[in-house]
This record gives sequence, structure tokens and C-alpha cells, in this order.
Amino acid sequence: MPTEALIARLTDLLGPKGVVTDPALVEPHLVEWRGLYRGSASVVVKPATTEEVAAVVKLCAETRTPIVPQGGNTGLVGGAVAEAGTVILSLARMNRVRAIDKAAYTLTVEAGVVLADVQKAAEEADRLFPLSLAAEGSCQIGGNLSTNAGGTAVLRYGNSRDLVLGIEAVLPNGEIYNGLHGLRKDNTGYDLRHLLIGAEGTLGIITAAVLKLFPRPRDIATALVAVADPQGAIDTLALLRERSGDTVTMFELMSRFSIETVLRHVPGTSDPLETESAWYALIELSSPRAGGDLQNALEEGLGEAMENGWVVDAAIAQNDTQRAAFRRIREEISDAQKHEGGSIKHDVSVPLASVPVFLARADAAIEKLIPGTRPCSFGHAGDGNLHYNLSQPVGADREAFLQQWEAANRVVHDIVQELGGSFSAEHGIGKLKVHELEHYKSPAALEAMRQIKRALDPYTIMNPGKVIAL
Amino acid sequence: MPTEALIARLTDLLGPKGVVTDPALVEPHLVEWRGLYRGSASVVVKPATTEEVAAVVKLCAETRTPIVPQGGNTGLVGGAVAEAGTVILSLARMNRVRAIDKAAYTLTVEAGVVLADVQKAAEEADRLFPLSLAAEGSCQIGGNLSTNAGGTAVLRYGNSRDLVLGIEAVLPNGEIYNGLHGLRKDNTGYDLRHLLIGAEGTLGIITAAVLKLFPRPRDIATALVAVADPQGAIDTLALLRERSGDTVTMFELMSRFSIETVLRHVPGTSDPLETESAWYALIELSSPRAGGDLQNALEEGLGEAMENGWVVDAAIAQNDTQRAAFRRIREEISDAQKHEGGSIKHDVSVPLASVPVFLARADAAIEKLIPGTRPCSFGHAGDGNLHYNLSQPVGADREAFLQQWEAANRVVHDIVQELGGSFSAEHGIGKLKVHELEHYKSPAALEAMRQIKRALDPYTIMNPGKVIAL
Repeated sequence: MPTEALIARLTDLLGPKGVVTDPALVEPHLVEWRGLYRGSASVVVKPATTEEVAAVVKLCAETRTPIVPQGGNTGLVGGAVAEAGTVILSLARMNRVRAIDKAAYTLTVEAGVVLADVQKAAEEADRLFPLSLAAEGSCQIGGNLSTNAGGTAVLRYGNSRDLVLGIEAVLPNGEIYNGLHGLRKDNTGYDLRHLLIGAEGTLGIITAAVLKLFPRPRDIATALVAVADPQGAIDTLALLRERSGDTVTMFELMSRFSIETVLRHVPGTSDPLETESAWYALIELSSPRAGGDLQNALEEGLGEAMENGWVVDAAIAQNDTQRAAFRRIREEISDAQKHEGGSIKHDVSVPLASVPVFLARADAAIEKLIPGTRPCSFGHAGDGNLHYNLSQPVGADREAFLQQWEAANRVVHDIVQELGGSFSAEHGIGKLKVHELEHYKSPAALEAMRQIKRALDPYTIMNPGKVIAL
Repeated sequence: MPTEALIARLTDLLGPKGVVTDPALVEPHLVEWRGLYRGSASVVVKPATTEEVAAVVKLCAETRTPIVPQGGNTGLVGGAVAEAGTVILSLARMNRVRAIDKAAYTLTVEAGVVLADVQKAAEEADRLFPLSLAAEGSCQIGGNLSTNAGGTAVLRYGNSRDLVLGIEAVLPNGEIYNGLHGLRKDNTGYDLRHLLIGAEGTLGIITAAVLKLFPRPRDIATALVAVADPQGAIDTLALLRERSGDTVTMFELMSRFSIETVLRHVPGTSDPLETESAWYALIELSSPRAGGDLQNALEEGLGEAMENGWVVDAAIAQNDTQRAAFRRIREEISDAQKHEGGSIKHDVSVPLASVPVFLARADAAIEKLIPGTRPCSFGHAGDGNLHYNLSQPVGADREAFLQQWEAANRVVHDIVQELGGSFSAEHGIGKLKVHELEHYKSPAALEAMRQIKRALDPYTIMNPGKVIAL
């Protein structure tokens, strides 16, 4: 536990507003969204500037005090869980939009800006910041970058790391790395930006970033589609990419069960299609060019897919209200699934062509392992990324089911590995998947990661116990 | 110099075809395109497989023998210069296209495939691999990735690193890092891919990569335009991005002098415009969507720019022959400039809005430093990237002029630094800019790079003397 002396020195650095020890105020920083973990740290520091972050890290390096950086604390793998004796460093007070350059399509923000506010700042300048995910109302951009968050727009715009031109960060020795530029080209040495992005706070703390903006879409077409099977979905995606001039921006696959959880538990939702099917896709085409008639392209493409037997029914949104209703069904799945009892989660990706075989093999293997388990499969199929979640059998004991977490992971991740996929597509490693990393990554990759971690953080003060076991 | 014993062991590993010691055959590996350096190594190894690369690196690690990896040897900063006592490792025999997946838009190639052959393989599958640069007929994809090459399509498609999904590499300890997947999402630990890309062979040797492909453009419009001044060019770019639905794929700025070198020295070229202007832009719009009438959008946009006084004359290519002629003027500048005597080179980027002020300030400062110097300014203005090259004054002594290289660099790079730019936008650091890196990078960034280099390459065998001074 941090000593009184340390707390006094932290207070000297940050002032009383910057150091929180009241248990009631510390509490929100200890809970974790899925309830898998509970932190036990007793101090939260809230620096207001990059210099204050640097001062805290310097002091922690000197005193060998471990630091757990926290953004919106919405992560899904326990990356922000703070054990006793660690200091939680919250970026919440670093929430300024520092600059926007409309002509250069860049936005400079501090780490603590909430993702929805980043989107809003871009929109006010008639620009798009495309990163979009369920937690956008509370997650912070610093956390998004530290975890290389994915979301629903990756198909077109890439992962978080692809949306960043420059970063500012505090390294484990307390020095400030200033790479906060908006240059499209800069080949001056090793790319520290990409090393820090996705490192989940284990190599330093991202304090600000220059983000790439895009033109806002002027033409959008959205459909909710019942597909014959996952292969039909993949074939439909390929066809639409070709027919629409590569304007597919969203392609989400959803099993009937995943949709049913929403229809059952979320008020105000309704089944958008008359035909009931085992699989659905939420599809969006968009373009910054107005008047391209994407709605027509979508209708024609889906017509062709229907003739091919890939699509069995389709509803095209006729206005923004319908579009929002279609999107909402997808967005509510995670929350709705909580009402179906215990859930064992997977966040996997496989090569696009292997999505159908993955689903078939995983379903069969899980039925064998825990008969009656209800797979709640949904996700960003356009990226080969599936949230292959498992709802407990009806009437089963929740705790007994959750005891099978590791066994289920092994079965599913082995299939993923055989298919050349990833056992963590977008959620990261955190605390939850450190053992999976050890199990599946090659010794060469693990050793390189350890060498980097030890070199940059010799006292192991940055988010210890996360990502890589030392 | 490698001992006879080492050569014997290398020959054991690779066979006689894999080890070259005949001075006439070694010679092409010692010369350097600009003639700034000359290598003096006496052995070239040519492994044919990743396992052979690994075996060579293991042996070199054991014997502490420095390795200089070479692709097409077309780099512009001496990154492939091999001092006496080093072993040159050529990837030329690793030139297979391993796989192409049209539906997944991916291409898997070995490091030694020539860039033009990569482009061709994509084209044969009706796909586009957008990386394009003057040396594409001889540079190799492994070198492109190791240097994070830029080129003329960065504005739309990004730098080399943005075109890669996965890599395979041999690390400095001789272990193979197998990250050769085509996944769009994979958040499993530190991003070794981005660390190796752009590291110029100092952290390992990239042996293969999975590249991203794109739909081929179905609608292209190209113009060669005389602009009033650089600000007019930047304003025209912004206008065209807005008016064309963000379809600008190329925007190259060229000074009158840079064009004149081509018209003067390259047979078969002619001035495409009647109006003579101090500045020109080569502009291309393209889209994978056919029938979008980009030619019309380009004409209308340029008409508006002309009304605004930004554009003074414009020629729009009416067919592919004209398009090729316009592009050729831009492509030939580097070669043509050789005929104008000594040239001091810069490869800088600045924020887009600062391009005009950079040119004005740099021209004035250079005229003061070396009166009569003729700036040959051209480059990828859409990325803020200029090849700010300086041709010697007419009649001046070539060697005396080139003696001013460092002084000119300091003047130009100081201006770049003040504007928040980069002294190496796309060519990298190599041997040429190690001192510039020391001069301009922050101590925090340099220290982090050194920590990484020492951790991954403790015996300093990988391309020693390049990128980062230890």
C-alpha cells in the first residue's frame, strides 16, 4: 500500500484535487465492467497536465511504486485492474481538445477526452472520426489507443492505431515523448507510436494524440438482412464490395440467438424482418461523395445475393430512424446477453474465408464440452472478428458454468489457432489473457516482447501483471 | 573481414549458390545510387529460404559478425552500405509470391520480390497494390517495408506500413518471428510488425509479408495544372477533396525549374501547358466505382479553382497516353536533375498548411547561404512531403558546392523543425542522417530507441552504424 509519505509527495506534485484517497471516490476505479475482477488500490491520482503525469511517473519510478493507468475503465480484459499497493493514474482531468485543423483533417486531443466527445468535435468541423464502439459514451480516447480498440468501422477505416498520426506519452522513466505531430510522413527512427499504441499502458502512458479525420459520409445506405448461413454472409460481403465500388463500411454478423436476446430484453426493439433465419447481417454502405445512389447499389447487390440464395430476406432503412433502429439491435447485444445468465466470452478473429468453418467447428466442440450451451455469436464479420460468446444452458448453475471458462477458451482458441486466427482480435490481453498469450504466441515473439518491456520499464512499474508475464 | 572459416561455415549452410565472394559479383552490392558512399564488404550471402536466413543470422550472432541486409539496393540514405568485415545478406533469391487471396484482398510475398512484380501479381487478380515509386522496377518489397517507403499514393493509401497485415522476420538472435497472417484485427501483445517496419534492418530482417490489396480504380481523371503559387496548390487540393468526394489519389507539386530539367534532358517530353508558371501540380482522382464521372468533377473543381485565382492553366488527360505523359514528367525529375550538376538533397515534410511558408523561407535562407543555388522543389505536397533538392549555381564548382551539404541541411532542417516537420519524411535515416537524428530528436525518444536496439540486438550485429548511434 502506498505510504503516507508517498501520498504527501503526490499531493505536493498535484495539489489536493489531484490525489483521491476517499474510499467512496476510489471505489468506481476498482470495479470492472464484467465483474470478473475487483481492484484493491487505495489511491487514485488525477494529473491535469502532461507535466503532472511525468512528475508522478518519475516519483513512482524513484520509489518503485507500480502505476495502473485508467481511462474510462470500460476495458473487457481487466487491463485497468489495480492491485493493492499500486497507484491508479486516471487521465480523466486531461480532457481538452487541444486543436482541430479542418483543412489538414486532424484533431489533437488529450487522453481523457471521452470518445463520443471526440466524435462530436470532429462533427462540429464537418469531419468524421470513425472509431465507434458500444462504450463510446464513457470510454476515453487514451484508453482506446492504449488498447488499439476496434469497433464497427474497422472494415473501412482500420483499427485505432490506423487513425493516429502522432502521440505524446510519458515513458516509464518519467520522460515525455513528444511525437505529437500531424505529419503524414515521418521516417525518423523506430516507430514508438505504434509500440505504445496497443501496449495497454505497460510501456508508458499516452497523454495526447493527433487523430486522423475523414470527410463525413454524404451518402449512406443501411440494411438488415437475413442470410442463409455464415457462408452466404461472406459471399454477400464480397459481392457488395465489388458492386458498390468498395463502399461497404459496416458488415456485422449476428446469430438468431443474439438478436433474440435483444428482442426479449430491450424495450422498444422489434424484429425487423418477417422471415426468421439462423443468421443475420447488418450492412452499411457509405461514401463522402453525395449523389452516388448507394441505396440503389445496395438494393441491386442484395437482389443479386438473393438470387444466389445467400440472402433470404432484407430490409433497407428508408430513413435515419430506421437506420438507428437497425444499428441499435446490434449495439444492444452485449448488454442484453447479461439477462441470459452466465456468459463465457471470446473475442477472436480468423481469416475471412474461415468464418463459417470456425463457427461450425466451435459450435460442435462446445456442445460436446458443455451440452446445451447457447452460442451468442455476433461481431465484425467483415474483419473476420467474432465475439463468440457462450450463454449458459437454460436452468444451469451460473457459477458451475463459469467454472468452465478456461476449458471453453482452450477448445475455442485451439480451433482459432489451427485456422491461423487470433485469440484476441480487439479487446487486448490485459490480465485476463496473459496465460493465453503465453500459450499461443511463439517463444520468439514472447522473448522479443519481454526484451522490450524490460528495456523500457526496468523496474516493472507500468501496469504490472498485464499483457506480458516476465 | 570475414575469415575463411566463416565463409566455409556459411557455404555449409547455404551451398555454393548462396555465398558470393567473386569481387565482380560482389561489386553491385557495394555501389550506392547517389554515389555518396562505397561499400567495402567482400562476402554476399543469398539465402533462399527463411530458415536459411535464420541459420545465417544465428551463425553471425555466434561469431559477432555484422550483417547488412540488402533488397534492391536503391535506398537514398546509405542504409545498405556495407563496411569491411560485414556480411551482406541479399534477399534476392527469396522472390516467390507465396499466396494470393482475392476475396480477402491479401497477397503474401517474400522479401525479395521486386515491387513491380508485386504490383503485377495484384493486377493479375484484378486487385491494386498501391505502393508506387520511381525505383519500382528494381526495389524489393522487403526493402520497401524495412524503410517504410512512401511514394505517390500515400495521400490515399498511406505509407508502406499501412499496407501490411502481417510479417515474417528473423530477429537478431536468429529466431524466426512468424506474424505472417492476414488478419485485420489482432491485439495480442506489442506490435512487433510496426517496430520492424521502418527499422531499416537494424532490429531484424523482414523475410515475408502479407500485403493489403485494394479494388482497382474503375474511374480515373488526371490533370497537369499550372498554379499561381504553392498556396494556390494547397487550396486547390482542399477544394478538390471536398468537391470530388475525397477521391484525390495523387497531388504532386513541381517547381518550374524541376519541370524544366525534364524538358531539357529527357527525350520525348514536352511542355504540356502554354502558360508558363513558377509552380505546377500533377493531380489524379480515382475511384473503384465506375461511372462516377471523376473527369467531370475534376474539370468543375479546377474551373472553380481558376475563378479563385489558384489555378492559371490546366490540361486534363483525355486518354491513357496523355495520362502517362503527365506522370512521366513527374517521375523523371530525379534523374533529369543529375544533368544540372551537383545536388544537395532534402526529403522533408511539414504540416500541409506550412508548405508555402516552408518554401519561401527555405529559398531565402539558401540564397543567402549559397547565392545562385537553384532549388529544384518537387514532391508529394498532398502529404506535406517535399524533395527540396538544391542544384548548384550555373558554372559553380561541383565539389565545392557539395561541401556545403551539411551547412545547407542545417539551414533547411532548422526551418522544418521550427514548423513542426520532419527532416526525413520517406527516405529514412540510413547512414546519411544518423547525425540529424541525434540533433533533432528529443533525448527521450533517442534513449527509448537505444534501449530497444540494445535489448533486441545486444551484440549490435544488425546493420550497425545505421539509424541510431549507440
